Amino acid sequence: MNLPAPLPLPVLLLETGGHQLEVAETLISVGEFVVIFIAARALAELMVRIQLPTILGELLAGVLVGVSGLHLIVPPDTQAQLSGMATGLLSSLADVSPEVLSDLYRDSFPSLQAVSQIGLFALLFLTGLESELDELVAVGAQATTVALTGVVLPFALGTAGLYYLFDVPLIPAIFAGAAMTATSIGITASVFGELKFLKTREGQTVIGAAVLDDILGIVILAVVVSLAGGEGFSLGPIVRLVAAAGVFVAAALFLSRTAAPAFDWVLDQLKAPGEAAVASFLVLTLCCFAAQAIGLEAALGAFAAGLILSASRHAHAIDAAVKPLVALFATIFFVLIGTGMDLSVLNPFDPANREGLIVAAFLLTVAILGKVAAGWSYVSKQKTNRLVVGLGMMPRGEVGLIFLGLGTQAGLLTKPLEAAILLMVIGTTFLAPILLRLVLRGTSGGPDLDPLAEVPT
Amino acid sequence: MNLPAPLPLPVLLLETGGHQLEVAETLISVGEFVVIFIAARALAELMVRIQLPTILGELLAGVLVGVSGLHLIVPPDTQAQLSGMATGLLSSLADVSPEVLSDLYRDSFPSLQAVSQIGLFALLFLTGLESELDELVAVGAQATTVALTGVVLPFALGTAGLYYLFDVPLIPAIFAGAAMTATSIGITASVFGELKFLKTREGQTVIGAAVLDDILGIVILAVVVSLAGGEGFSLGPIVRLVAAAGVFVAAALFLSRTAAPAFDWVLDQLKAPGEAAVASFLVLTLCCFAAQAIGLEAALGAFAAGLILSASRHAHAIDAAVKPLVALFATIFFVLIGTGMDLSVLNPFDPANREGLIVAAFLLTVAILGKVAAGWSYVSKQKTNRLVVGLGMMPRGEVGLIFLGLGTQAGLLTKPLEAAILLMVIGTTFLAPILLRLVLRGTSGGPDLDPLAEVPT
Repeated sequence: MNLPAPLPLPVLLLETGGHQLEVAETLISVGEFVVIFIAARALAELMVRIQLPTILGELLAGVLVGVSGLHLIVPPDTQAQLSGMATGLLSSLADVSPEVLSDLYRDSFPSLQAVSQIGLFALLFLTGLESELDELVAVGAQATTVALTGVVLPFALGTAGLYYLFDVPLIPAIFAGAAMTATSIGITASVFGELKFLKTREGQTVIGAAVLDDILGIVILAVVVSLAGGEGFSLGPIVRLVAAAGVFVAAALFLSRTAAPAFDWVLDQLKAPGEAAVASFLVLTLCCFAAQAIGLEAALGAFAAGLILSASRHAHAIDAAVKPLVALFATIFFVLIGTGMDLSVLNPFDPANREGLIVAAFLLTVAILGKVAAGWSYVSKQKTNRLVVGLGMMPRGEVGLIFLGLGTQAGLLTKPLEAAILLMVIGTTFLAPILLRLVLRGTSGGPDLDPLAEVPT
Repeated sequence: MNLPAPLPLPVLLLETGGHQLEVAETLISVGEFVVIFIAARALAELMVRIQLPTILGELLAGVLVGVSGLHLIVPPDTQAQLSGMATGLLSSLADVSPEVLSDLYRDSFPSLQAVSQIGLFALLFLTGLESELDELVAVGAQATTVALTGVVLPFALGTAGLYYLFDVPLIPAIFAGAAMTATSIGITASVFGELKFLKTREGQTVIGAAVLDDILGIVILAVVVSLAGGEGFSLGPIVRLVAAAGVFVAAALFLSRTAAPAFDWVLDQLKAPGEAAVASFLVLTLCCFAAQAIGLEAALGAFAAGLILSASRHAHAIDAAVKPLVALFATIFFVLIGTGMDLSVLNPFDPANREGLIVAAFLLTVAILGKVAAGWSYVSKQKTNRLVVGLGMMPRGEVGLIFLGLGTQAGLLTKPLEAAILLMVIGTTFLAPILLRLVLRGTSGGPDLDPLAEVPT
């Protein structure tokens, strides 16, 4: 999280009544929520109706109300000004000067970011919680080759391309490469589900590989962000962090088999209301603290906490308690990513943007080809629709956005690179459902495509 | 919300790496959650086991970890120092100096308060949502006399006593009086439910009167806080604010009859996931904004939003979506109230505290007698257990704490008066279940006490 610049607030406080400041603060905070939720919901509903992922709507909502649009939500680090209309309305309602209002706005932004961070952690926790480790084991070998190819190819091609072809410094190049490794389970699963393809062998393999991708991607992310903060690029810290991340995830996988019964026992003893929400939030925060304390990203801890509790008997109740948090606060996270995006750097009519646009096109191409190629790494003697597997791995969705958001927070990325990654995430998330529908509708149902065929477990 | 004092952060940023600062910030935020949830849950579980309200546990958890206890959570406005052990642990984990850590701690506190504020709004929304307006109408006349007496007596006696006997200035005196008007529906309902007394005529009257008390109390609160910020004490603003509050609540009650179908229609059109959570949060934030914009407290808007949606067909789904928010974030709100309480001002061995203690004893006495007397205002020709009605109105619980928290935030109260109100809230909340159990278990079941008797509707 970026720290706000210090404000001369005592001076303002002397000039403005304390009560007016409080009124203005409340109007700002509540008003931000109103703007975010109206925009996000309107565009999410639009996306659902044209059969595209809702996450695209939330992102576009952010672009619409943010620095590339109406200037209703402007992250302070972008130096953009709040819309004059909004400033005018709020300052007249609260009876404070527009200057005081701007300062209060800047000062209250960290609170909004803190709430969005809770949404991010809740989403990663939910992703871990809904990981079907047993299904992963069932499609094991095939999913592993697909996942590894789908991580290694985009990561290697993306990083090397940026570093050697476009002279991007090593750390941002690695970070952008890492952002391309993700696969959004949610988006693929919903398209497969809609087309009754989820229970096929290909469907199960893609889901299994997507879970593995999440684990690999978050480990890479944790290592990159931790390295980026620190001491330059030497082998020692890398080995140490990769080892720490590996041990951390292994411990989480191990605990999901062994600690879940203990958690269930504790939960059964709890009698005060809200026990599922509080107990799982406590596991979540403890894992975040542990991850951060050994030098990894807290986000990895949130995901690990979900993995640990995925084997709980109470997973369903936990899921129900976490979903409203995700619906409310992860939305804020995605909208905030959109608000900070300066899309003018992608304006093709400005010659200064040409290189940025070429980088964006390069990333998008690598992101598509890398995952489609992963489909051909599928090892199977049966007739397999490898294109469907590859396309299924393609959408980066929320996972790609989480990477982007963390990179922006850590100050790793230039504006053009940020916009290029955003375009890559939007492009793959947008194209995957469309291409999958085209390919699947053109397929005649072989035995593997029977929607009712059960996967051996 | 209190504004944080500005910190010389750029200087610190130059001396400390940006990544270390981020790590320290994350450890602080996550660590605060861990401390709050462990303490709150442990004490809430203890309370459940000795048959006392869990809210007392959350409050005591705050006292335990706050400025009167372990100094693990110390609101910056108390000027208290963070525990040396916590500072040492965090500063060594994040590799920053203890001074930098203290500054970061102070700087991150507003985010925690923002999250607790969301919890408060969610709780008030839930209170409104669970108000059974129909039951209120059924027991109408009787509940109204009980509610009015139970509001007027403690308010008038408390305010007049503080102002005339103890020379408390008028605004704090009115505020303390207002804090005594509340009745906690939740605590009474749970004791009545446990003793199979909820469906009796007395039980229904108390619940109906408690709903009315909430409405009256929140209106008084909104007026007092708004007045306190402003222009001293003249009749004009009072009349204007009372009228605004009255119109606002009347509009909410009217909308709960008319707008709920429109809301249901909109909700039925929504197809993106999380629709109940997002749509109701949007109504909540819009009502908060409207209340604040016409000069009332945002808290009144949250309660009104709940009232409006209480008639929705989807009230059950909304309830399920809001409960986890309350379980997590309202807990933070109650714990934070406890952390800020300096109980040393109640130490009876310090002669300087004598007056404060007498005030506390006075408030507690008025708070008990005012509500018990309200039981005798019950108008009925049937044999009625008036003592049970009075005792049922007694616990101030979460509503009293919300008043206290808002008064503290608005800077209206001196430390001794804060502590006295806290003692009043704790005392009534603690005594009511105990006394009710004693009285009800000693009662032989008359026709009115038949647990299965249905209230005419």
